[in-house]
Amino acid sequence: MAATGEFDIIREYFAAAPAAEGVVLGIGDDCALLQPPAGALLATSVDTLVAGRHFPEQADAAKVASRALRVNLSDLAAMGAEPLWFTLALTLPSADRKWLQGFSRGLLETAREYGIALVGGDTTAGPLSITIQVTGHTTKPLRRDGARAGDSVYVSGPLGAASAALPLVLRKRKVDAELQQAAEAAFYWPEPQLTLCRAIAPLATAAIDISDGLLADLGHICRASGVCAEVDVDALPVAALARELAGESARELAATGGDDYQLCFCVAEADVPALEQLHSGATCIGRLVDAAGEPQVMAYRRGRRWSPQQTGYQHF
Amino acid sequence: MAATGEFDIIREYFAAAPAAEGVVLGIGDDCALLQPPAGALLATSVDTLVAGRHFPEQADAAKVASRALRVNLSDLAAMGAEPLWFTLALTLPSADRKWLQGFSRGLLETAREYGIALVGGDTTAGPLSITIQVTGHTTKPLRRDGARAGDSVYVSGPLGAASAALPLVLRKRKVDAELQQAAEAAFYWPEPQLTLCRAIAPLATAAIDISDGLLADLGHICRASGVCAEVDVDALPVAALARELAGESARELAATGGDDYQLCFCVAEADVPALEQLHSGATCIGRLVDAAGEPQVMAYRRGRRWSPQQTGYQHF
Repeated sequence: MAATGEFDIIREYFAAAPAAEGVVLGIGDDCALLQPPAGALLATSVDTLVAGRHFPEQADAAKVASRALRVNLSDLAAMGAEPLWFTLALTLPSADRKWLQGFSRGLLETAREYGIALVGGDTTAGPLSITIQVTGHTTKPLRRDGARAGDSVYVSGPLGAASAALPLVLRKRKVDAELQQAAEAAFYWPEPQLTLCRAIAPLATAAIDISDGLLADLGHICRASGVCAEVDVDALPVAALARELAGESARELAATGGDDYQLCFCVAEADVPALEQLHSGATCIGRLVDAAGEPQVMAYRRGRRWSPQQTGYQHF
Repeated sequence: MAATGEFDIIREYFAAAPAAEGVVLGIGDDCALLQPPAGALLATSVDTLVAGRHFPEQADAAKVASRALRVNLSDLAAMGAEPLWFTLALTLPSADRKWLQGFSRGLLETAREYGIALVGGDTTAGPLSITIQVTGHTTKPLRRDGARAGDSVYVSGPLGAASAALPLVLRKRKVDAELQQAAEAAFYWPEPQLTLCRAIAPLATAAIDISDGLLADLGHICRASGVCAEVDVDALPVAALARELAGESARELAATGGDDYQLCFCVAEADVPALEQLHSGATCIGRLVDAAGEPQVMAYRRGRRWSPQQTGYQHF
């Protein structure tokens, strides 16, 4: 807890980031110097996690770091991009050695796992928050605005686990150690769908990562592409953990709960056989239709229009 | 103050950012898509400004925005880089319409002035803080580690104004309206030294922008380059506003006060005549010598070793 300057913090805890291709100069100067792959189209995204809002104030620092980077990597996956490098802007109440050790360990382990290089950062004193900006490169970007009526809508994997886990993560519900661990894994270690994204990129017309809830996020594709979506809620792949924790509410959580970071993507009718042959684990959950009026998502259960209790995460 | 989602805030207040070369896709998707100039070496830097620490909580939003972007542009100047694009991660207590209007106006005006494009962002609820990441490109990067013993040390312009202005900015001292305005200009509108940086880049061996105070920041060059610096404090160009506000303390503020964002740079002896012929307004303030022991800055006044009361801004 000794008084420590910005420069010491960055050097002591984060400069151990491994050297990476294209990183001419990493942490420690006014700027990082980066050589992008020749002809690369870069994809970049920034996300802030605020303590008490996106993670509990007292959460394990390594887990928080891992989640922060994974959430950002998910944006690269949703764009069809391969990770290159990232920066960290860390605001923290004090230079707490133990916290910083845990945080840097979690961050650098995750960075190694996904092959992304930490190239710069800033630390400031203030209420705990973490801003990460990731940059990747892509040859076939998966935008939100490329979907067309007639496309099939897919999700990359089971939904609902992270939002069902939330009461446990927040310690509002007491369960046995094994279940607690599973809940924390679902929340803190979402899997950025980079491998799947590589496989589907040649076929997908649009993609988004499910951070705010399937129906809300698919709504962004609909508005960007000017289409409506018909979603069969009964077809959603519901995470086993969500069923175990939320019982009958699990399907609603799969439709509306955020934080799973699966991908939702669209495929033109002609490419559906090729997509199915990938055996990617993705599930068809509906299709796109002409937006006669306003682009929107129409959910159905047992063939009837269905409205969830909640429609996605709002930041304000 | 109505409940407003992240997407609406970004769209409503910041999507008016002008289109720019190389920006294939700006705000509104999972990632921005960016086409760097062919063969470009990219320079990138991130900085967080926290309310109550880097600017007063009640400060005018347009001014805060302008300062936040200028401070980051200064890092590009210090690296010898031309601005390309930037992202904004904004954490704010509520979706205050008036504040957001002022902030976006100040931000986008500054962006236009310096030809940098806003390409992405994130807004979250929480204690007010602003994280900006700028990216530029360079063919001749100005690193901190290129200085050598024998180099002359220069500063790009007058120092001390911003730190002398701080008591006025914080309303701890009452002055007439004209002086108040000059003080706020010094603090909120520092001039990123992009034009000067273009001129000196072929000649400079190292550079840094003075954010934490001349002696502290020159110390970073010394440590990175393995040299000592001898600085003649009597030779420092002291800002007129610093003299007006701080009287006899002005010279010490010029040596140690932060926030001016002038450049400190080094030039090899053989290149000094060429540098002087640029008539850049830069002032020679000392020279680099071999670091017999630890690399450090040795300041002198009237020929005698001098130690300031404070040695630069520490974040913790």
